[in-house]
Amino acid sequence: MVSQPLDLDSMDLGSTDLGSTDLDSMDLAKVMQHREQFAVLSGKQYFNYGGQGPMADRAIAALSQAQHTIQTEGPFSHAAYAWISQQGQQVRGAIAHALGTQPETITLTENVTVGCNIPLWGLPWQSGDHILMGESEHPGVVAAVAELSRRYGLEVTTCALAAARNATQADDGPVEIIAKGLRPNTRLVIISHILWNTGQLLPLTDIVERCHRNAPHTRVLVDAAQSAGSLPLDQPGWQLPETQVDYYAFTGHKWWCGPAGIGALYVRPEVLAETAPTFIGWRGIETDGAANPTGWKPDGQRFEVATSDYPLWSALSEAIAVQAQWGTSAERYARICALSQRLWAGLRAIAQVDCLLRQAPPPTGLVSFQLLDGNGTPSPDLHNALVEHLETQKIYVRTLLSPHCIRACVHYLTLESEVDDLIEKVQLFLDKSSEAGS
Amino acid sequence: MVSQPLDLDSMDLGSTDLGSTDLDSMDLAKVMQHREQFAVLSGKQYFNYGGQGPMADRAIAALSQAQHTIQTEGPFSHAAYAWISQQGQQVRGAIAHALGTQPETITLTENVTVGCNIPLWGLPWQSGDHILMGESEHPGVVAAVAELSRRYGLEVTTCALAAARNATQADDGPVEIIAKGLRPNTRLVIISHILWNTGQLLPLTDIVERCHRNAPHTRVLVDAAQSAGSLPLDQPGWQLPETQVDYYAFTGHKWWCGPAGIGALYVRPEVLAETAPTFIGWRGIETDGAANPTGWKPDGQRFEVATSDYPLWSALSEAIAVQAQWGTSAERYARICALSQRLWAGLRAIAQVDCLLRQAPPPTGLVSFQLLDGNGTPSPDLHNALVEHLETQKIYVRTLLSPHCIRACVHYLTLESEVDDLIEKVQLFLDKSSEAGS
Repeated sequence: MVSQPLDLDSMDLGSTDLGSTDLDSMDLAKVMQHREQFAVLSGKQYFNYGGQGPMADRAIAALSQAQHTIQTEGPFSHAAYAWISQQGQQVRGAIAHALGTQPETITLTENVTVGCNIPLWGLPWQSGDHILMGESEHPGVVAAVAELSRRYGLEVTTCALAAARNATQADDGPVEIIAKGLRPNTRLVIISHILWNTGQLLPLTDIVERCHRNAPHTRVLVDAAQSAGSLPLDQPGWQLPETQVDYYAFTGHKWWCGPAGIGALYVRPEVLAETAPTFIGWRGIETDGAANPTGWKPDGQRFEVATSDYPLWSALSEAIAVQAQWGTSAERYARICALSQRLWAGLRAIAQVDCLLRQAPPPTGLVSFQLLDGNGTPSPDLHNALVEHLETQKIYVRTLLSPHCIRACVHYLTLESEVDDLIEKVQLFLDKSSEAGS
Repeated sequence: MVSQPLDLDSMDLGSTDLGSTDLDSMDLAKVMQHREQFAVLSGKQYFNYGGQGPMADRAIAALSQAQHTIQTEGPFSHAAYAWISQQGQQVRGAIAHALGTQPETITLTENVTVGCNIPLWGLPWQSGDHILMGESEHPGVVAAVAELSRRYGLEVTTCALAAARNATQADDGPVEIIAKGLRPNTRLVIISHILWNTGQLLPLTDIVERCHRNAPHTRVLVDAAQSAGSLPLDQPGWQLPETQVDYYAFTGHKWWCGPAGIGALYVRPEVLAETAPTFIGWRGIETDGAANPTGWKPDGQRFEVATSDYPLWSALSEAIAVQAQWGTSAERYARICALSQRLWAGLRAIAQVDCLLRQAPPPTGLVSFQLLDGNGTPSPDLHNALVEHLETQKIYVRTLLSPHCIRACVHYLTLESEVDDLIEKVQLFLDKSSEAGS
């Protein structure tokens, strides 16, 4: 949490005593009321926000309303396109506002991965350039980098960020680990703001500062799949322009609880010109009176391609508005941290459970843990069995493969009772497994 | 129409006499009944199928139903993903069937342009390779080729296909025009199956045969924006594998009347291996037990990236099913041709109208025409004024910029009365313009 001025110590982060209610009871009442807008949350206990967030009724309704408007006004007409264009401005504005930036820095994409591919394929690569990446980046990004490396003759190395999750004060922190991986020819550093497997939060500003200091050509690309919509990125100290990050790719369908199929990429204005569009279409270009391309759009739209499912724009605007209605980003983040601490502490109290983070609760909504077999070894079989077992009871968590674990996510929408119930269900499952095994 | 065995001469293509009803009156009755499934068509006269087709009520409902299923079953859960996966298989099957091919050859994309960008950036380019393209390809594709050329040092030339639309028997046809543009180093030929501005239908099989004969490395990429859903591509002689086309990129939201935001790319199995994925994500790769990428998916899915708006899959399946319910692809195409002949003939009978195709009606649903000013010169001002004027009456046509013209599209859904009314409205508009100008 280096250089993040939001003071976690001053927040009410709950207690490790599950019997207590250090979580703000006002918040809980507000959440109960707020959840009435999420019909899809009724009858289930949902902990897969890091995979996909559930949509509020208003956001779902926005999809139908927008489709109705477009089909009725056109679908292909001046009126329909004027309306679509206005919806595009609105969602760009909503996204930019939530990141403390300007709409001109935003490129709408289909998902996080497309947002990562844009700078990956857009940088002016030279054979021999070096890419440094965290060792647990998403497989899709890893595969894209491998292909990029094959085509351009790049060197790719990884640094052990997730593996250092339980490092002590005497060990290197993330900034030092990354610094040791940098080379004079490092062109791009690829990290996640929040590690999707461990729930670690990386000190973005310090990392970017260190990478930029490495060489004038060193850029930082962030996979922000888990951070947009969960961190208070509109707050001083967190705002993207302040961090100086070059590329920040994210999605609307996880922590923002928007529809799947829409994400965005932030590009720092200073690196826009050096980043060439690769997948190219009419949305990214300027044309003359005879429809001949004359250049790129002046802003982030240059990386957009062609026709999309425009109702997603309306629905994401609505989803972001619904969250803001509950509380500020700082209030939501504080609740996320309080709930993840409660879950983490409860799980750690179970003998056969090992949380991936051991020293402190995740400063994020991602709580990953392993179930230990009779030999004290993490058991993928137990993980798979528990996830399947819970889904039959409409309790939703997921497994991750590396390290093999179970990930349960808490959002501001999560109820304290859901957290407590999940802990109890894990305990019960382990008890039964032990009985069956004995 | 060289080498297309569907015998247009034997079809009832209507008459140039607007008073006659050579169009099948049974068909019209079926269309009237069928249109009851398209609430969005009521109260308007729609001629922008080439821009975006209107969605049937069932297809719109499929969006909501799919979203409901996903949100209720998950949204992130084994159950939701099993259902999504089944919807993916279904839409791949529906698309493949409509093109006379196998699902393995299909890559789902966001739109036509992404489908074009995949082979553009995926071919193993060598500096100095040559690209030959039609002179009126879509600006988005033109811009993508320009950037590709800049990066890899490619030569790009165009050939005049649209300009030769009114060539006589003595002039070169499309195959000869393309043949004259080929070079020993031609790596890729880019054409449209149906030219989006003129409505010309290119003889695909003959063009591909000629291009493949040019050199072992010559490939053909087709922008099929206007052809998928309008041509009977599931019929013998038209089926994609028979044409030997290498890449065929299309969308669901035009002639298939599906939702915007979903398209697909056909890749001929013989060129799959040489076409490298560029924008890469989890949907395109295989992984091992620790989530490490191990290779590409064996089929067209290798070019797919990551999370999409999956309800679009259900809606496109439904849209394709709705069309099949009305009649076979050959029956729909016959009706399209009959209606475009009716519109073309009616417009040609107006003195101040010049149709882009002069010798014969378009063998497609695209009827493009120019309004002539007092000097007999095509008038962009008149085009813009007419399109705006018609939209105020809920009659939807569009302008195109090169050559500047108005394009009115007819589909199997179009009513004879709509065609006749459009002709009358054009005449009335010109009469009033003449009065105002006199």
